[in-house]
Amino acid sequence: MGSEQSATDRPLAIVLISGGMDSCVTAAIANQEYPGRIAFLHFCYGQRTEKRELQAFEKIADFYSVKLRKVVRTDYLKEIGGSSLTDERMVVPTGPSPPESIPSTYVPFRNTHILALAVSWAEVIGAERIYIGAVAEDSAGYPDCQPEYYDAYNRLIAVGTKIGDNLRIVTPVIHMTKAEIVKKGMELGAPLHLTWSCYKNEDVACGKCDSCLRRRHAFHTANIPDPRPPKI
Amino acid sequence: MGSEQSATDRPLAIVLISGGMDSCVTAAIANQEYPGRIAFLHFCYGQRTEKRELQAFEKIADFYSVKLRKVVRTDYLKEIGGSSLTDERMVVPTGPSPPESIPSTYVPFRNTHILALAVSWAEVIGAERIYIGAVAEDSAGYPDCQPEYYDAYNRLIAVGTKIGDNLRIVTPVIHMTKAEIVKKGMELGAPLHLTWSCYKNEDVACGKCDSCLRRRHAFHTANIPDPRPPKI
Repeated sequence: MGSEQSATDRPLAIVLISGGMDSCVTAAIANQEYPGRIAFLHFCYGQRTEKRELQAFEKIADFYSVKLRKVVRTDYLKEIGGSSLTDERMVVPTGPSPPESIPSTYVPFRNTHILALAVSWAEVIGAERIYIGAVAEDSAGYPDCQPEYYDAYNRLIAVGTKIGDNLRIVTPVIHMTKAEIVKKGMELGAPLHLTWSCYKNEDVACGKCDSCLRRRHAFHTANIPDPRPPKI
Repeated sequence: MGSEQSATDRPLAIVLISGGMDSCVTAAIANQEYPGRIAFLHFCYGQRTEKRELQAFEKIADFYSVKLRKVVRTDYLKEIGGSSLTDERMVVPTGPSPPESIPSTYVPFRNTHILALAVSWAEVIGAERIYIGAVAEDSAGYPDCQPEYYDAYNRLIAVGTKIGDNLRIVTPVIHMTKAEIVKKGMELGAPLHLTWSCYKNEDVACGKCDSCLRRRHAFHTANIPDPRPPKI
């Protein structure tokens, strides 16, 4: 393989793929901007639906023919506790979250861990962008889903890495509603049928947890049927 | 136990303890400011001298009668590679680092991972300060040891956590030289004899790696004999 081709083939954008629809649509956008030059990163942190999310990650990666994939276990987050997603003694709440509150599914500072991992990997492979499907409006309770959080993180990267401000986090769906994300996904041919949203179950989505309710509302508002298969 | 006593006993400051002398002196300072209310955090990331550093951590914790200690494995850093401290195929350089360069012992974005862990733990246990023994001058090559990095991190905590700006990272030795750190440690009775600095060996310090050379220079300049036992 010639060196020119190697340079062209080098993955230049990392996409964080949780397995849900926000990250799936984010991947579709990244693939438009860095066609054939995206790398996928997923992490398992002891959440209840870990296996199902990992399966969604692999299927979305297959869909986009992503060669460079990394799955990282970060079980120390489980050890720290403090969230109903990782602490078996806590109950996953059903029904919508009260507006402006921070739900108990919040893992303390979770996105900072994920992003630190992405930044370290970006330095090693030479990526210049990290795509993350954070959504500000539909995640009002999560402080690490707001635009100012990503501004602060990009400042941290600029002063705290070798690569400096040549590496940036981008959040292409942050100002979209869930319904707009669904529409964008359909427009770009994103494989929404491969995504998993339920916080609680791994076989059939519970339909009752906060994430299921938001997904249902998104497709309903977008006036598009949810293509998710009912059972694996 | 009465609730008043519980509140008083609650650990309110986390100290990051690597096992080296900078973190040891930082612990001494934290113990002055939060007497009897410090928690220790250490992490193992597959570095060559992992066992020896862990031993130093436990001994320093015993010295300060720290009850709340946490040791976390973050092996994903080893998986990512890119540093001679974690990648066996790379050679640990001997001799001093060239000024202003970034040494190959640099783990990409390492302090961000450590601090994210500390912040998550702080949220769970309700700590309001995180002490870290970063030194700007003697670590000129490490971008994540500079004051602006910590300013950026505190901004990230302020916007990215539940606790907000009630939690802050403090860096009491950041503007000190290594010799000043030695003197401060002696003044506060810090157990420098329990610390480990060598990047390379676990039994007898090699005396040649960058960290050994800086330690020797520090004690020499402070005109104080190094109390480290020669062998364990």
